[in-house]
Amino acid sequence: MEYFHVNFGNDHKKEDGGSNLKPMDSEQLREYGHKMVDFIADYYKNIESFPVLSQVQPGYLRGLLPESAPTRPETLQDVLQDVQTKIFPGVTHWQSPDYFAYFPSNSSVAGFLGEMLSAGINMVGFSWITSPAATELEMIVLDWLAKALKLPDNFLSTGEGGGVIQGTASEAVLVVLLAARDKILRAVGKELIGKLVVYASDQTHSALQKACQIAGIHPENCRFLKTDSSTEYALSPNSLREALSQDLATGLIPFFLCATVGTTSSTAVDPLLALGHIAKSNGMWLHVDAAYAGSACVCPEFRHYLDGVEEADSFNMNAHKWFLTNFDCSALWVKDRSALIQALSTNPEYLKNKASQANLVVDYKDWQIPLGRRFRSLKLWMVLRLYGLENLQAYVKNHIELAKRFEEFVSEDSRFEVVAHRKFSLVCFCLLPPQNDEDLANKLNRDLLDAVNSSGKIFISHTVLSGKYVLRFAVGAPLTEERHVIAAWKVLQDEAAALLRNSSKMTDSFA
Amino acid sequence: MEYFHVNFGNDHKKEDGGSNLKPMDSEQLREYGHKMVDFIADYYKNIESFPVLSQVQPGYLRGLLPESAPTRPETLQDVLQDVQTKIFPGVTHWQSPDYFAYFPSNSSVAGFLGEMLSAGINMVGFSWITSPAATELEMIVLDWLAKALKLPDNFLSTGEGGGVIQGTASEAVLVVLLAARDKILRAVGKELIGKLVVYASDQTHSALQKACQIAGIHPENCRFLKTDSSTEYALSPNSLREALSQDLATGLIPFFLCATVGTTSSTAVDPLLALGHIAKSNGMWLHVDAAYAGSACVCPEFRHYLDGVEEADSFNMNAHKWFLTNFDCSALWVKDRSALIQALSTNPEYLKNKASQANLVVDYKDWQIPLGRRFRSLKLWMVLRLYGLENLQAYVKNHIELAKRFEEFVSEDSRFEVVAHRKFSLVCFCLLPPQNDEDLANKLNRDLLDAVNSSGKIFISHTVLSGKYVLRFAVGAPLTEERHVIAAWKVLQDEAAALLRNSSKMTDSFA
Repeated sequence: MEYFHVNFGNDHKKEDGGSNLKPMDSEQLREYGHKMVDFIADYYKNIESFPVLSQVQPGYLRGLLPESAPTRPETLQDVLQDVQTKIFPGVTHWQSPDYFAYFPSNSSVAGFLGEMLSAGINMVGFSWITSPAATELEMIVLDWLAKALKLPDNFLSTGEGGGVIQGTASEAVLVVLLAARDKILRAVGKELIGKLVVYASDQTHSALQKACQIAGIHPENCRFLKTDSSTEYALSPNSLREALSQDLATGLIPFFLCATVGTTSSTAVDPLLALGHIAKSNGMWLHVDAAYAGSACVCPEFRHYLDGVEEADSFNMNAHKWFLTNFDCSALWVKDRSALIQALSTNPEYLKNKASQANLVVDYKDWQIPLGRRFRSLKLWMVLRLYGLENLQAYVKNHIELAKRFEEFVSEDSRFEVVAHRKFSLVCFCLLPPQNDEDLANKLNRDLLDAVNSSGKIFISHTVLSGKYVLRFAVGAPLTEERHVIAAWKVLQDEAAALLRNSSKMTDSFA
Repeated sequence: MEYFHVNFGNDHKKEDGGSNLKPMDSEQLREYGHKMVDFIADYYKNIESFPVLSQVQPGYLRGLLPESAPTRPETLQDVLQDVQTKIFPGVTHWQSPDYFAYFPSNSSVAGFLGEMLSAGINMVGFSWITSPAATELEMIVLDWLAKALKLPDNFLSTGEGGGVIQGTASEAVLVVLLAARDKILRAVGKELIGKLVVYASDQTHSALQKACQIAGIHPENCRFLKTDSSTEYALSPNSLREALSQDLATGLIPFFLCATVGTTSSTAVDPLLALGHIAKSNGMWLHVDAAYAGSACVCPEFRHYLDGVEEADSFNMNAHKWFLTNFDCSALWVKDRSALIQALSTNPEYLKNKASQANLVVDYKDWQIPLGRRFRSLKLWMVLRLYGLENLQAYVKNHIELAKRFEEFVSEDSRFEVVAHRKFSLVCFCLLPPQNDEDLANKLNRDLLDAVNSSGKIFISHTVLSGKYVLRFAVGAPLTEERHVIAAWKVLQDEAAALLRNSSKMTDSFA
């Protein structure tokens, strides 16, 4: 499993009990940092030689490592050796050009440099005073990104709203759900929490269900409204109106609507404008989750998918998915920051300071679940500056073109079928069963998924749409080129042919 | 503001529209990564030349940066120049050896290397399958740390419990509060959420209050029991018993007790064993927050502060505070992982996979708020291996010795007073007012805090204990040596002398 070699000098020669440990010596950081850069650059150089999906068995690592931490120091050479021989086999390589599963999680040189710098400065920016630059750069860079997305001005930090970097879209939807919950409970009384109702389509990410669990919204008050192929899995305003009128008739209190631009299963786009009007006339908070597809909306030709976002109270996109910013960096904008702050602020004595007390500054601790926070705006700033918006648009468009190419491959092969309309860089498709047998169809596609993923050559994932087991091919890894898409299609065709041969043999033998 | 110089070649010469952008080219990563290593190493080399606490005014950065993101790429040289001239002035340098505020947030060479590697691999480890190594290394390394802390075996991953890395202690207390909340609500019915009561001392970190807000525990059911100097600000079992019996008498439902080992204000230690017995006999979940002081408890001579932890249901310490692991890395252990999972799991189709469905693996997404998660165990693993436990113990002990030294300085100067008993590396103290005037005392210490922090020479913070404004001097930055503590004391003495001169002048002139 030695894909490349590292050769270090003698690290950590210290032989005493550690009383003169210098854990942050600048010259040691320099020496070891350079070694680590080479190690990581070599990883990327050789990334195509790894199985994309890790092929290890559960529990593989336990026997390979000692049962307890070492008493004395070990060398960096030993650790990196272990990374190669023990850790890498257990890594699923999200940055591999042959990775097409879930949604992408981009790394880039700029994003990586931003992570390095953030780890180097290693400040904890809970309040403005703990590093003014961290708070202010975040405000500015999220204004930049809001402008690139042509979000309405009331999402900018210069008004009553503003942007904030959350860890993930799950945290984004949770904090706005809490803001909306507490806003309505202030009006109706907190004992009515059991009457609050949340609306979304059944295609909405499970993060919303989890947020509701956390916030104490009763599961029976979460309306995940059924969608189907007739609306291309988008939430129908009519079904929302129906649900609302039923709930209002029984004395329940609708307060939150989550719309999605680019659902996880099939990148469906909910009709924001129509949903926004319903939300507004019912006094509900509208959150728009564009975690994945938001990146595409910086391109003029895809911006129309956000039409109606002006009706939303909050909007989220993950720069760490498809926007070259290393994980984690989930951008959230709200129109009314005071609602967030009212739900999430605390003000203990030991954190008080003049700037905060005078209300002169933003303290992002009150916009998020945790207290501490890293300097994440650095990496987004570096991505935007080192690549520039034109390059970023071209990057996303190229993936969409590659997905279109893959869609054509599927369409041209009569053994396969494209399922759901492709909008961005995800293609949903399936292998057709020999005798139109639905049960066999699901098994066949499950087997195809297993076969291609076990080959280590590519990694794809799946979903279920209208009861049908569907394969998902998501283009979006930074190193993916046309040749990788062509090769992936070949892998799928070959494994499919083998499966169909076996299945027709089996059908024959049972005939 | 140019503390050091960097000189790069021409970066990003690309002149086309970006169609051939290579955002993850291994050789570009190598070239730029080396530059960034040197930039960060130089930062540490020069770190003492910066004002510790940033001296900028609110809004300073807005005018220094453009109003929107660039269309075309900029050079790394330009960006790093801006980091030096525009960002660094707005950074509060947590890694400066002259940083003594709040609690420390350690960076180290090993921790930094771990961050680099994690950012390089950039996988998103929500489920085992998305990188088995990430999940399994985390389980193993938290077992290592549990053993180093001599936690009871039922916190190990080999039984019904196990460890998990959370971002912060705030998230740690939130997830266990949710686990405890849902456990009791399953028994009594979810409509009784308004009757649930949480207990802790008034010295407990505000993270608990925030967790209660999020979880929908009514504020009037949060008992932050009063402490004072008679118990050295520890929670008295008697006051807990009293509160419990009152609440039980009125039909409320006690369900959660948070004890602290090393409170934020004064590092008070709650009596775990006595509190644990009360919690157990009342069917309450006991969480132990040792976010800061947990690091000291790897030393045999300080382990006794954890006596009684065997009665706890969950235990938390922040490796990112005082254990050389870069932010964020908050280690949480639970005895019953199923309680966590029941509160936090979701199981959408698009994340299903054989290993998870067969219940063969841990999926950490169900132990935390977010879905996605970084490969944070790498940095903790590297810290433990590259330094070894002996060095880490010596590191912590050295800071405690330095704090003891500082405490002696204060004791020997009759103008000052040590407030609260020092246990670890935090010294609480204050400047005594000339005429024993309490109002003047608070103002005097506020002014002293302002004076030393505005000098840029050191950064300390404050708290209030029994109504008294108290200065906090927390030793724990990785570069802090005896000479820095001596110099800090000199700064404090000089500024105090100047303040006392002025205040006696003022007193004279009003006399």
